[in-house]
Amino acid sequence: MRNFKLCLSYDGSRYRGWQKQGNTPGTIQEKLETLLCRILEQPVELHGSGRTDAGVHARCQTCSFKADTALDSGTLLELIRRYLPEDIGALSLEEMEPAFHARLSCREKTYVYFIWNSSKPNVFYRKYSFSCPDALDTSAMERAAILLLGEHDFTSFCSLKRMKKSPIRDLRQIKLERRGDMLRLEFTGSGFLYNMVRILTGTLIEVGRGEREAEDMPAVISARNRQAAGFTAPAQGLFLWEQVY
Amino acid sequence: MRNFKLCLSYDGSRYRGWQKQGNTPGTIQEKLETLLCRILEQPVELHGSGRTDAGVHARCQTCSFKADTALDSGTLLELIRRYLPEDIGALSLEEMEPAFHARLSCREKTYVYFIWNSSKPNVFYRKYSFSCPDALDTSAMERAAILLLGEHDFTSFCSLKRMKKSPIRDLRQIKLERRGDMLRLEFTGSGFLYNMVRILTGTLIEVGRGEREAEDMPAVISARNRQAAGFTAPAQGLFLWEQVY
Repeated sequence: MRNFKLCLSYDGSRYRGWQKQGNTPGTIQEKLETLLCRILEQPVELHGSGRTDAGVHARCQTCSFKADTALDSGTLLELIRRYLPEDIGALSLEEMEPAFHARLSCREKTYVYFIWNSSKPNVFYRKYSFSCPDALDTSAMERAAILLLGEHDFTSFCSLKRMKKSPIRDLRQIKLERRGDMLRLEFTGSGFLYNMVRILTGTLIEVGRGEREAEDMPAVISARNRQAAGFTAPAQGLFLWEQVY
Repeated sequence: MRNFKLCLSYDGSRYRGWQKQGNTPGTIQEKLETLLCRILEQPVELHGSGRTDAGVHARCQTCSFKADTALDSGTLLELIRRYLPEDIGALSLEEMEPAFHARLSCREKTYVYFIWNSSKPNVFYRKYSFSCPDALDTSAMERAAILLLGEHDFTSFCSLKRMKKSPIRDLRQIKLERRGDMLRLEFTGSGFLYNMVRILTGTLIEVGRGEREAEDMPAVISARNRQAAGFTAPAQGLFLWEQVY
């Protein structure tokens, strides 16, 4: 069995998210596994670096799969590209050492959230950003962002009520950048809980609107209660951006 | 009757172009006129700065219309925004002097064509660019672009066989810019013939691929024959960008 690393890009608009759900169609993982099974004529299990929710996009989602094949990576990549729908792209394919696993080997992940911050509509970003026309105090958002960094129990920023795994994550960087009317929020960390980036974004937006104080962030974290944090920003503004191995 | 200038932005993907065609629905002009008639409770004729083909986008399409109304521009703009579909945006609305006409008063127009020039797919630009993975010699394209500038009979760059009006246009500027894997072609002129920007783009791509010589451009112009020029680049890469009055 050879081990492959496949980097995907996708427009999540018409999918039910990354992870397959039994026999329900419409997830990206299920779509890709079906396609790989057909090309390689064997059952293939595809692992992504992490899940993305329905409507969330990926600039780069690193995946891995094992297969018994004589095809070289270039030919296999071409075949995959030929059969993918136009909203899923295969960026690269390479053979890896047997121990490589897209999720388990991942050391760091980056997500980017785009906020269209203008009362003028932007039709081209409508599926790729959250439209928020309110004035946002970005320096308050930056002060809040700094207070969220570090290793914490992020239960307040998680939508799942019962978690099997540890809710502790290391949030290493939040970068805010304004490019014209677009506000770009980049989150880098060891990993993220369910909906964590969207709740972090919603909370930062509430700080930007003046609905909460930047200085309250430590209290929000220590509450370990979803009610203490802000709203869950909509899926369409979120991109899984890159992974470090 | 008051005279208004309305700036629109639209994603042309699901429309049959700008200009209304009898009673056939699906054009942007027809969509807007219906909406303005309903809001203003009177027949409204909307003039755009020019037509865009099916699938062509507009970053800014300046329009004008006359109406008998007591509504101030701000309120009217809000009403228009409330009823527009998500792929058409109203950027601004202002009252103008009676002589202003979006098409007749227009002194200069700019179109931008985006070419995604990589073998790696880009799913987010799939509806907003032409994907051309071939190596393109941009310095040859720039040499060709310079030879296309000026006041010429552009019949070779027009899809319509019988033209009522003069085929002479003043092509004032072509700017080529590479931003990573995206090639951006900006065309500015007094006006453009039917499909002219798409045929200019197709011809420049053929020069870039080495299929024609940059130095042949004067002969292509003087042939005054559609067959002498290159292919018509697809609609989805083209944006009506701005107008000067």
